[in-house]
Amino acid sequence: CVCVCVCVCVLIPAALFMFQRLAEWVAVQSESSDPAKWIEVEKMLNITAQRIREMGGSVELADVGTQQLSSGAVVPVPPVLLAEFPGDPKKATLCIYGHVDVQPAKKEDGWATNPYNLTEISGNLYGRGATDNKGPVLAWLHAVEVYQAIEQEIPLNLKFIIEGTEESGSFGLRELIMERNDSFFADVDYIVISDSVWASRNPALTYGARGSSYFFVEVDGPVDDFHSGVYGGSIHEPMTDLIALLASLVDHTGKILIPGVTDDVVPLTDSERKTYQNISFDLEDMKKVVGVKHFLQDTKVKVLMARWRHPSLSIHGIQGAFSEPGIKTVIPGRVIGKFSIRHVPSMNPPDVERKVQEHLKQVFNGLRSPNRMKVTSAIGAKPWVGKLCDNQYVAGGKAIKNVFGMEPELIREGSTVPILQDFQEVTGKSVMMLPIGGHDDGEHSKNEKISRYNFIEGTKLFAAYIYELSQV
Amino acid sequence: CVCVCVCVCVLIPAALFMFQRLAEWVAVQSESSDPAKWIEVEKMLNITAQRIREMGGSVELADVGTQQLSSGAVVPVPPVLLAEFPGDPKKATLCIYGHVDVQPAKKEDGWATNPYNLTEISGNLYGRGATDNKGPVLAWLHAVEVYQAIEQEIPLNLKFIIEGTEESGSFGLRELIMERNDSFFADVDYIVISDSVWASRNPALTYGARGSSYFFVEVDGPVDDFHSGVYGGSIHEPMTDLIALLASLVDHTGKILIPGVTDDVVPLTDSERKTYQNISFDLEDMKKVVGVKHFLQDTKVKVLMARWRHPSLSIHGIQGAFSEPGIKTVIPGRVIGKFSIRHVPSMNPPDVERKVQEHLKQVFNGLRSPNRMKVTSAIGAKPWVGKLCDNQYVAGGKAIKNVFGMEPELIREGSTVPILQDFQEVTGKSVMMLPIGGHDDGEHSKNEKISRYNFIEGTKLFAAYIYELSQV
Repeated sequence: CVCVCVCVCVLIPAALFMFQRLAEWVAVQSESSDPAKWIEVEKMLNITAQRIREMGGSVELADVGTQQLSSGAVVPVPPVLLAEFPGDPKKATLCIYGHVDVQPAKKEDGWATNPYNLTEISGNLYGRGATDNKGPVLAWLHAVEVYQAIEQEIPLNLKFIIEGTEESGSFGLRELIMERNDSFFADVDYIVISDSVWASRNPALTYGARGSSYFFVEVDGPVDDFHSGVYGGSIHEPMTDLIALLASLVDHTGKILIPGVTDDVVPLTDSERKTYQNISFDLEDMKKVVGVKHFLQDTKVKVLMARWRHPSLSIHGIQGAFSEPGIKTVIPGRVIGKFSIRHVPSMNPPDVERKVQEHLKQVFNGLRSPNRMKVTSAIGAKPWVGKLCDNQYVAGGKAIKNVFGMEPELIREGSTVPILQDFQEVTGKSVMMLPIGGHDDGEHSKNEKISRYNFIEGTKLFAAYIYELSQV
Repeated sequence: CVCVCVCVCVLIPAALFMFQRLAEWVAVQSESSDPAKWIEVEKMLNITAQRIREMGGSVELADVGTQQLSSGAVVPVPPVLLAEFPGDPKKATLCIYGHVDVQPAKKEDGWATNPYNLTEISGNLYGRGATDNKGPVLAWLHAVEVYQAIEQEIPLNLKFIIEGTEESGSFGLRELIMERNDSFFADVDYIVISDSVWASRNPALTYGARGSSYFFVEVDGPVDDFHSGVYGGSIHEPMTDLIALLASLVDHTGKILIPGVTDDVVPLTDSERKTYQNISFDLEDMKKVVGVKHFLQDTKVKVLMARWRHPSLSIHGIQGAFSEPGIKTVIPGRVIGKFSIRHVPSMNPPDVERKVQEHLKQVFNGLRSPNRMKVTSAIGAKPWVGKLCDNQYVAGGKAIKNVFGMEPELIREGSTVPILQDFQEVTGKSVMMLPIGGHDDGEHSKNEKISRYNFIEGTKLFAAYIYELSQV
């Protein structure tokens, strides 16, 4: 394949400007979970738009309405970027999805480097958004630039849809896809998403992702925070109530204790079990990466299934209690526990949310507390499973073989890409995930990174993929 | 009583400068829980020393050694102020204890005003430290100034011991008392402490205080924070372990579940029960102050006993988890739960700490988690009970009758004043608590205040007390 060979030659001297661009993107603190930082998200969308325009694409920043904040204020949501490069009706059309918002990050969370100052250490590029998802979005743009640099015609029509609130629930995106289904999406054949990571050191194609519901359980009682010496022993402390509520959710084996929540999980078949046995996932290596002596499960297959095809519940933290270092003898007056459930086929998020509400209500009633409990939920994203016989998986397999000299691993994603299900349901188009991030990139955690290797080889993979998809 | 009548006349025009001084003291952010702010604590001690010197007292800022921080650094602890006014061996000697450090306070904790900008609203003076304990320390100094202003001889020898780490465990104070037992304390007859509040709208003498142990239960496992999508369901999450540990401490009735912890509580006698019935504590009023529909107990006597003569356990918060507003789908890698137990006679803090350790170890073993649990404790202050037949209680009762025209309520304090037990054990002197703070002052909470009424009448009470104690 001419394309891929040429890519390699062009990309190596070009690597420096690629890192520089990634550093500029990472420097923008586009945290979407905090509406006060939406101005940074919009800045990041404008930078992306400008880049695409300079490359010859046309860009629309589509309005996706407003959101009401907890303060009651109604504010406009950051727009969604829709772009296309000049096309040819005879070619197939690939639409590339990405997002340029990031998870929150603060140095004091334990980052070894400033999270917004891309820093290379031993071949790894550390920074918030490096792998989730600024690096992969840039890699797609760089793959297009490679074709332009060598003046080779791009064998597909290319479109981009880039959003700025993926980490907070993709506000208005599903509605936009519905609205543009007969226009922007009408001539799209394939939708590809590179918002995930490999499962091992080997490249992969991803055919599934878990859904997610995020819950806030608030216990509010005393009008204020009070001194635990003065009132301790006489009042129903909101923290005591909340700890009892949180303790009722999941047991120490990882089993979700909320009645009925796992009823709809698709049963495992023998043939499905076999696909897991072929994955080169190294349990011992993963133990080292995570830093644990053992997982909740004792075999590779069971651990992978726990991460990809079984639901899970994680408790993330408590807002309103004393969370700083040191000593404070306070009875917090209002506390909010935060947890989330990862859904798998065929769990239905609204159904799960209802069962969580009922369960917590019942546990709270048992506490006979005069405090008030309120359960709210966010995200509500369905799980997704793709079709392995689809053209995209065939082309993806060939591109991986070209660039990496091996067959792809067929994997699923434990985390949630709500947009997958939205694209599949609304547009009915072929949808695939083509990850380039490493299995140890630490997305959503401190010390998030992408390796130089994955960033550069990933760019090559995208260029090769465009070629292979035009050939199937 | 000449003294008290003159006081009233002098104090009313003097009130303005009293408020101004309190505002200056509150403005110093002397939070002792954060060693980075010890420089503010030292500033506050220097301001206090300067004030006493200007009033004619001699001051020593006594070194109390160093502390090792969690970072490993060893830093000097703020000194303890020892002061005395020129005396007369024929007079009895009263030593007044106070502290000028404060609990942490941030506007965003929900303060209606800037916590370090003393603000008067409807006769209340809001600010961190207004009642705990800067206001009362100033009131003692103002009482002395009243004698000086009217050129009346102070009928007692006066000493002061003022510290700067009371809110964090009174580093080195017990050792200092032992060291100075044969010098500074040799001629002291009485020690009085005004670091507590009334139980109702009526003035009180306090004859008991609960002890306290503060616990940190740390669960550490994964080397980092991880993404709950990627790893959720496969790893023993430190938060799941910690929630199970915290849920094992106290039930929804307020009962402490740690085996053996309440074994040593002194049984209630009929005569003790009767003293509670005389307290003008208004349960309905207290419900309004706290903002709850009911307490854990259903009668005035039971609620007061729960706050004063029974142990309690409060969960204060979790460090290391996600505690901010918004959404973050994180599995925190290392979390520290914080809780404390209030001790009553005759519980022994080291014994309680050992039982807590054993209990948490047993619960954690049951979780079969590969994570590491570590339990540490701080404060470790014994409970205290004074003797009602002591001269100080007699003089205190007369002074209250003089200033307020009523008998004192004999109350106990739910919170902890570790120094009480230290003074009693080490010096063997008479120890009493003479509070001037209001029952709704909100010490340790947001919106801490002292009322103008309590601040001014409290100053009169102290002046009257000095006189009455010289007469018994």
